Amino acid sequence: MTEVAPARFGAVEAGGTKFVCLLGSSPDDIVARTRIPTGADPEATLAEVVAFFAAAEAPAAVGIASFGPVELRRGHAHYGHITSTPKPGWRDADLVGPIRRAFGVPIGFDTDVAGAALGEGRWGAARGLSTFVYMTVGTGIGAAAVVGGRPASGLGHTEMGHISVPRQDGDTYPGRCPYHGDCLEGMAAGGAIAERFGRPGEQLDGDDLRQATLWEAGYLAAGLRTIVYTIAPERIVIGGSVAELPGLFPLVRATLIETLAGYGVLPEHAADDFVVPAGLGGLAGPAGALVLAENALLAENAQDTAQDTAQTTVPG
Amino acid sequence: MTEVAPARFGAVEAGGTKFVCLLGSSPDDIVARTRIPTGADPEATLAEVVAFFAAAEAPAAVGIASFGPVELRRGHAHYGHITSTPKPGWRDADLVGPIRRAFGVPIGFDTDVAGAALGEGRWGAARGLSTFVYMTVGTGIGAAAVVGGRPASGLGHTEMGHISVPRQDGDTYPGRCPYHGDCLEGMAAGGAIAERFGRPGEQLDGDDLRQATLWEAGYLAAGLRTIVYTIAPERIVIGGSVAELPGLFPLVRATLIETLAGYGVLPEHAADDFVVPAGLGGLAGPAGALVLAENALLAENAQDTAQDTAQTTVPG
Repeated sequence: MTEVAPARFGAVEAGGTKFVCLLGSSPDDIVARTRIPTGADPEATLAEVVAFFAAAEAPAAVGIASFGPVELRRGHAHYGHITSTPKPGWRDADLVGPIRRAFGVPIGFDTDVAGAALGEGRWGAARGLSTFVYMTVGTGIGAAAVVGGRPASGLGHTEMGHISVPRQDGDTYPGRCPYHGDCLEGMAAGGAIAERFGRPGEQLDGDDLRQATLWEAGYLAAGLRTIVYTIAPERIVIGGSVAELPGLFPLVRATLIETLAGYGVLPEHAADDFVVPAGLGGLAGPAGALVLAENALLAENAQDTAQDTAQTTVPG
Repeated sequence: MTEVAPARFGAVEAGGTKFVCLLGSSPDDIVARTRIPTGADPEATLAEVVAFFAAAEAPAAVGIASFGPVELRRGHAHYGHITSTPKPGWRDADLVGPIRRAFGVPIGFDTDVAGAALGEGRWGAARGLSTFVYMTVGTGIGAAAVVGGRPASGLGHTEMGHISVPRQDGDTYPGRCPYHGDCLEGMAAGGAIAERFGRPGEQLDGDDLRQATLWEAGYLAAGLRTIVYTIAPERIVIGGSVAELPGLFPLVRATLIETLAGYGVLPEHAADDFVVPAGLGGLAGPAGALVLAENALLAENAQDTAQDTAQTTVPG
């Protein structure tokens, strides 16, 4: 009896500074991996990605989890492109096209944060759940909602870092979002902490650390309240460097329950496993790109089956 | 040749004051309808619902769109129940059980606002879209997100009226939400307008009408910004009595674009068909209950097919 090897997928986490690529079937079965600096020329960078996979093994499908904004609407002429990024050279860059042309296999495509959400849902802190939110709090704040197993997107994609949050008592910091000033990202991303206290969060101690953690928990809880009321997730997973502030999670959980104020609250909202740290760290994005690849392959197979069935049942 | 009649479904919009029931296949094919006052005893009210359908025609499936909060998790012991309502007699009332027992057909179940969203998606202002939000602004504010064709819910259900919104310039009204004070519902539902101006929105004129419409547009736009950033809907449909304030929609559209401040904005967000009035009025809920019924029937048929296939392919 021959053992059937699992399908190997290509995964690309396309970031503003580097492309993380891996070939495998899961985080436990990574047969090749590399990092490619994000150059000024998208075509050259993507040629390196293609060369990496070509040198390893032709993937059964490829998933791309990309920095944005990106075009996710399948029918759109720019589907699979980065759109209006300020990053030199990358405006309107086609990510999906070159990789599809190189390998002729199904390509999955979504935002980097949607990819990380799928990774956490398959192998990380949201395993087994179908409706949950993954949020990353670092240089910026991004979040993706997975609803019924798929990242939600309709017109554009979610930008949950930019929801409005009420100002915390005693905080006079104006906020650093160039668009909205004091939105969640403007008040609670890493740079806001550093600007308020004159040094980054991971260097704070004493009263500064206590105050920073209190405000951070307040802003995140305010954001999570909005997420609970707009998406009703089964769990919220938080990753990113700011999530490592000591004592942050218990404070976020307690403050969230306080700000929900008894409305629409279930016992599960107060449990320790409702707001949890991410499980995969930096691997979430590439792992999620594997899920995007698999989903693309499954979708194509389902379509083929439907066409075969139609051909069988329609008399010739 | 005999013509096959479309399947007739039972639809129940379960409200705090009345149950609206209809039997049909679409808003254009309603063969029987009635209104049953919501009594103090759920069993008696549901017996009247059952008697109405029994007297008309046995439905192929029944959809129930209910006031809440309700339990939507299929595996939960209280699935299909109203849960913690303050309405006397209705706490923990089982809506699905009695109707399923009476007819032995598939039962669809969701919130009243999710039902209305499905109705607008099938026959109203969101026709043909798969990811959109329906919001009703009246005595309260409720909204449901349909994502990939299904109302989103995970733990509990959405309560979008209770997201936080920044205070509008010059508005000193404290807000009337008993839980959160100045959340969206607290500032922008019908009662907030009436309390600010000493008379209901539909009686305002002159400067009061102008000011009320300006603030209302500001609060709704702030809420919609959060919805755009958390769900990325293709369209937002707004119904309810407050949506009838003269001149409200153009102002909401313009204010939304202003508050998005150029971030994550596509040309489609600025189009007149992004934020639109509801198309079905009071029929949205019962029409959506028809969709819930149909979805329940389709789900059961799909399950049967899967079981048949499994029985065929597994050797006996």
